[in-house]
Amino acid sequence: MSNFDVPAGYRFAGMASGIKKSGKLDLALIVSDQPAACAGVFTKNQVIAAPLQLSKPRIAAGRCQAILVNSGNANACTGEAGLQVSRQSTALVAAALQVPEELVAVASTGVIGVQLPLSPFEKGVPELVATLADDQAAQVATAIMTTDAYSKVASARGQQQGNEYRILGLAKGAGMIHPNMATMLGFVLTDAAIEPELLDSSLRRAVERSFNSITVDGDTSTNDMVLLLANGSCGGPAIVAGTSEAEQFYLALERVLLDLARMIVRDGEGATKLVRIQVCGAADEQTARTAARAVATSSLVKTAFFGEDANWGRIIAAVGYSGIEVDQNRIDISFNQVPVARNGLSTGPDLEAEATEILKLDEFCVRIDLHQGDAETSYYTSDLSYDYVKINAAYRS
Amino acid sequence: MSNFDVPAGYRFAGMASGIKKSGKLDLALIVSDQPAACAGVFTKNQVIAAPLQLSKPRIAAGRCQAILVNSGNANACTGEAGLQVSRQSTALVAAALQVPEELVAVASTGVIGVQLPLSPFEKGVPELVATLADDQAAQVATAIMTTDAYSKVASARGQQQGNEYRILGLAKGAGMIHPNMATMLGFVLTDAAIEPELLDSSLRRAVERSFNSITVDGDTSTNDMVLLLANGSCGGPAIVAGTSEAEQFYLALERVLLDLARMIVRDGEGATKLVRIQVCGAADEQTARTAARAVATSSLVKTAFFGEDANWGRIIAAVGYSGIEVDQNRIDISFNQVPVARNGLSTGPDLEAEATEILKLDEFCVRIDLHQGDAETSYYTSDLSYDYVKINAAYRS
Repeated sequence: MSNFDVPAGYRFAGMASGIKKSGKLDLALIVSDQPAACAGVFTKNQVIAAPLQLSKPRIAAGRCQAILVNSGNANACTGEAGLQVSRQSTALVAAALQVPEELVAVASTGVIGVQLPLSPFEKGVPELVATLADDQAAQVATAIMTTDAYSKVASARGQQQGNEYRILGLAKGAGMIHPNMATMLGFVLTDAAIEPELLDSSLRRAVERSFNSITVDGDTSTNDMVLLLANGSCGGPAIVAGTSEAEQFYLALERVLLDLARMIVRDGEGATKLVRIQVCGAADEQTARTAARAVATSSLVKTAFFGEDANWGRIIAAVGYSGIEVDQNRIDISFNQVPVARNGLSTGPDLEAEATEILKLDEFCVRIDLHQGDAETSYYTSDLSYDYVKINAAYRS
Repeated sequence: MSNFDVPAGYRFAGMASGIKKSGKLDLALIVSDQPAACAGVFTKNQVIAAPLQLSKPRIAAGRCQAILVNSGNANACTGEAGLQVSRQSTALVAAALQVPEELVAVASTGVIGVQLPLSPFEKGVPELVATLADDQAAQVATAIMTTDAYSKVASARGQQQGNEYRILGLAKGAGMIHPNMATMLGFVLTDAAIEPELLDSSLRRAVERSFNSITVDGDTSTNDMVLLLANGSCGGPAIVAGTSEAEQFYLALERVLLDLARMIVRDGEGATKLVRIQVCGAADEQTARTAARAVATSSLVKTAFFGEDANWGRIIAAVGYSGIEVDQNRIDISFNQVPVARNGLSTGPDLEAEATEILKLDEFCVRIDLHQGDAETSYYTSDLSYDYVKINAAYRS
């Protein structure tokens, strides 16, 4: 993450406020010099943390200027008291920056069900505001980490009528998703000028193909949130829906989100491998997604990856119970370019031995052809290792 | 399993036929002296093994006299050749017993995608038939094992107009379910006289509350099958639907299946704990099941059980993403009698410390009250341990 582009008109700060007893960075602030157009995608979990309850309607209004984030405490299952702390923390930011409270969003990640005190914010917000700078994005990426082994930053550039814009993405989420040390968080900033409606549709589409196409353990948390801000600081007219510039922006955004998503899977708790589950020949994209997701979330498939076993029987069984209609006699499965099953039958021990070599790689692709149609999709997953159990069994103690 | 009742009119045999290279028992035969009424429940996986393709229509016809079972090879994903082997193996049994082929069912469990040869059956079936005896049920229970640590037998008795009948259940299925070393199998035999329609409805209801209410890893295999035979050897008139005898039979059947189901969970790969997930106060039973299943299959919840961590945050998050409508501010959670969350909020560190003591037990109950209505259900699950990963990563190698 040493090399990344920072869009114009944003400043950043991170600090250790004491929420994490370890003394590590745990509080961060992102500020746009001017109010930015914004869009957000939030968890579908019915149990929703206080910061999401507060931020969701604010982001829906289409304008945002600051994002406050803490790690170490999710402020989830904390009732009315938790909501008050979220509200008061954004009021502190609004007062210090002299912007309306409604333009401040807040996100939290950490333990569920423990009250989050206001004191770290009372002490920390003035310090954050005092240290805001355009070269501190890496500090923010570090301050939002929980069980992450490393911070996650990705960026891209694009052109819009002679003006160059940048897109910067910061994310966290080691156990994807980890409902105790809750949360996948993503913050994406651009200096392009884009209306909220186009931002919103671009973000939803890109999230579906990136953060919603990865899995470490299949759980989705109370705090998941991805925010996208566009402040127009690169100059020039706004990007308009339906143009080639809009499509170019979408592709750059998708690339940033997919880079972050792959970093999250690779940093999955205990993960040693990044595996792409590609389902093709499906009747439609939804069918392909359903099958890919069943394979990507199967504990048996994931332990076989860890064991470097080209166990296509577990893969075809997961497709079979995924809920889609399949003809088992037409399914082909390969590891990278090596076919292990054709028409639902083994291709023999020689090819399986070749496939076993593929499984020794850090990164490989499982391709499943249903021979039903032309739709395809990819899901990214990790293996399930001893360390996954170790990290998750020991986490709170 | 030292003490169990064997219904009248059944004989059993088990042997080592060489399908398992280890030389362990791998072939079994159950025979009723006379054709029995029968019912069956089969996997919902769309990828279906050859023995199920053959046995399903035979069982649906309502009469069965013999069940042939092999372990060590699932005969799944083996195409037309696999179906031929299943058919020929039942033909061997039919010829040796001099009964119609249509009265012979066949089941298989083991590795997927490897052709099953006919030779072990050609050699083994005459030996099985020659050694059939009414005191060999334990041999059958052992011969159907794969990764099971121990064999699983349960029994019950009932009365029907002065005649005592017995119900005997034999099952296997360590990894519930394990699509490579495929399969949960259950064979239930009674000497009561019962028509196929009543047998079928009783079996479906009892399976729903037993085998379909347990999970070790959430996968369902290509070979899962539960068969119920009633040969009427206890004498007297048949049990008729809608009578108190029918209800008494159902309850005895449910007890046998639930005993077997709990043995399967307790023997789950690497499992160290048996946990009952009880969801109550649900709007309807389906809602309760959906929530209970999400909690019971969550890798994060199951690793927390292994870590003996009273981590109700992971439990409430799993309820939240299960797909049911919930009001997070009304959810209560307790471990046995110790409340850890009330109205979606922590009950404090003292009660959580008490709950941590509960988690040290081999067996405990997590009770989740949704406060939406009167429906409730229970799901049985295990913890997720290092050994689960070890067994499944290493299995084929």
